Amino acid sequence: VAHDGAVVAALLDEARALVLAQIRTVLKERRRTGFAPLYDQLAVYPFREGKGLRPALLLSACRAVGGRADQAVVSATAVELFHNAFLVHDDIEDGSELRRGQVTLPEELGVPAAINVGDATNVLAIGLLLDNVEILGVRKALATVREVERMARESVEGQAIELEWIRQRRYDLSDHDYARMAYKKTCWYTVIAPLRIGVLAGSPPGTRAPTDDDLQPLIRLGFLAGIAFQIQDDLLNLDGDPGLYGKEAGGDLWEGKRTVMLNHFMRTCSPADHDRALALLDTDRRRKNPAEVSWLLQAMREHGSLEHGRRLATEYCERALEAHREISLFSVDGPDRRFLREMVRYVIDRVK
Amino acid sequence: VAHDGAVVAALLDEARALVLAQIRTVLKERRRTGFAPLYDQLAVYPFREGKGLRPALLLSACRAVGGRADQAVVSATAVELFHNAFLVHDDIEDGSELRRGQVTLPEELGVPAAINVGDATNVLAIGLLLDNVEILGVRKALATVREVERMARESVEGQAIELEWIRQRRYDLSDHDYARMAYKKTCWYTVIAPLRIGVLAGSPPGTRAPTDDDLQPLIRLGFLAGIAFQIQDDLLNLDGDPGLYGKEAGGDLWEGKRTVMLNHFMRTCSPADHDRALALLDTDRRRKNPAEVSWLLQAMREHGSLEHGRRLATEYCERALEAHREISLFSVDGPDRRFLREMVRYVIDRVK
Repeated sequence: VAHDGAVVAALLDEARALVLAQIRTVLKERRRTGFAPLYDQLAVYPFREGKGLRPALLLSACRAVGGRADQAVVSATAVELFHNAFLVHDDIEDGSELRRGQVTLPEELGVPAAINVGDATNVLAIGLLLDNVEILGVRKALATVREVERMARESVEGQAIELEWIRQRRYDLSDHDYARMAYKKTCWYTVIAPLRIGVLAGSPPGTRAPTDDDLQPLIRLGFLAGIAFQIQDDLLNLDGDPGLYGKEAGGDLWEGKRTVMLNHFMRTCSPADHDRALALLDTDRRRKNPAEVSWLLQAMREHGSLEHGRRLATEYCERALEAHREISLFSVDGPDRRFLREMVRYVIDRVK
Repeated sequence: VAHDGAVVAALLDEARALVLAQIRTVLKERRRTGFAPLYDQLAVYPFREGKGLRPALLLSACRAVGGRADQAVVSATAVELFHNAFLVHDDIEDGSELRRGQVTLPEELGVPAAINVGDATNVLAIGLLLDNVEILGVRKALATVREVERMARESVEGQAIELEWIRQRRYDLSDHDYARMAYKKTCWYTVIAPLRIGVLAGSPPGTRAPTDDDLQPLIRLGFLAGIAFQIQDDLLNLDGDPGLYGKEAGGDLWEGKRTVMLNHFMRTCSPADHDRALALLDTDRRRKNPAEVSWLLQAMREHGSLEHGRRLATEYCERALEAHREISLFSVDGPDRRFLREMVRYVIDRVK
């Protein structure tokens, strides 16, 4: 069954609009009191509109437990900014060329300024989290910082696992290795933390903050949905329409990124193909032969590696839907609860 | 008058030992529960012992307002870690080769892993700040996060100002331009924030956290002492004993760093010398002619630019001592209060 496109699109649009308005306000203030050119650079990625998946999850989780949007919008903006900070540093680490259809920030400003813009984006997000004191009270504001700390810790550990694979030139990776890395690098900050922070923000004012135990079931849901999301993201990179997707086509192969599909190919292809692929993957991005990159993509396709990825993503998606059914936290019926279910299907169906 | 070396050395040693023990404990825990290789990389800079100036200031400020070391040690460790995170990213941004007498982390691990280690170091520091809830209570723990946010914001803005000068190839900079940049980039995280956070941590338990107004006089003291510190640091880079100082000799000239001394030279030298210096400074670090670097250092010396820096640092130092005398916050007599005065003189006298 395809996802309910209308509810997903409506809630993504709403979240994007709320968050961009908030970012506009805080940047205006920072430009006024601080060093303005830094905040112009900082605005570049957020205003190249992304999907807004993270803020939408956060807002919907908040309302699905009975909260209002104004309890969540500051946290949603902070999470979106942390995401953008992560993208800036990730684009340097991966040597990427395009982001959201345009040249990456390190290509535009140079690596030094881009590192600093990433750092500044994190600082801006922390500033927003401090504004939560007035909105949520001291305890829930602190609990939100705690969630963000966990999210960021998982992300840097996931990033470190991936960078170690690159440093050690490892391609002998199982689907399990991949899931462990992506759980940390992607699931926490794309799904788990937005849901947990949304529930925190939406819990009735004056009551105690939800405990770690209360929030525990969201880890499994976010893991399953997040892995499905990441595999789908990687499939789009290999096989999607670059005009819609906003990154260079097959960019992951140029970067030698360990995706489920590439891992499958390297584990199961013939020794001759393995040697040929390895020679390509071990070559610096700028020296790679385009014909060899095309060969590898075609060989992966013929070998069933893309199909393997699609199958795996669908499996994770189905398990995520099951996990979602078992969660009792989202008690308020309405579009938000529907969105939280539909977004799992959306992950598989999306073309953008 | 020379500084009281014994009290300065004793308090720096004590702070270093307390902070390193704390870092050892938290890294052990992170290695056990997280991705261990990341925490091995993260340990590299902190265990190349620095001066420990920031934690020492924080601890002494805490005790000089009547607090105990155990109220401050977690914050002091966090501040030291933020400092180390900043150094990792700064070494990438500046293309530095040596840090604390050994090869820099980006040279050792490559830029991608080094960016991530810097990010992970920030996350570790934020984790420590959350431990403050148990030590200082919710309100003072949050107030400390607020101080750190301000510190980090000033630092990235200062860094952005400096990077803009580089991008625009500007060398027409006054002492005032320099002071504004260094106030943000250096003074906040080297002096102002450690003092303010120390006072917060040391304020009597159960009482309200000191307000922004209470902490205001520390901004002026930290500005004056911090500028003196930074000029002295830059003088040591140009003119110090590389064995003691731990960075490559004259490294700032290779990097084209806008110091008070270089700015003075560029403002006041002959047009011919200006052209010759500009040709050198606009050349990529790796293509610079060593003979020209030596010429520039010698020309700056003969032109009185190093002397200008020394004079300016001494002026800032004297104004800092004056500002210190006017501060009534540090009411507890003893070695900590003495340290907070002596450290201003130490800044000028230090050889390491």
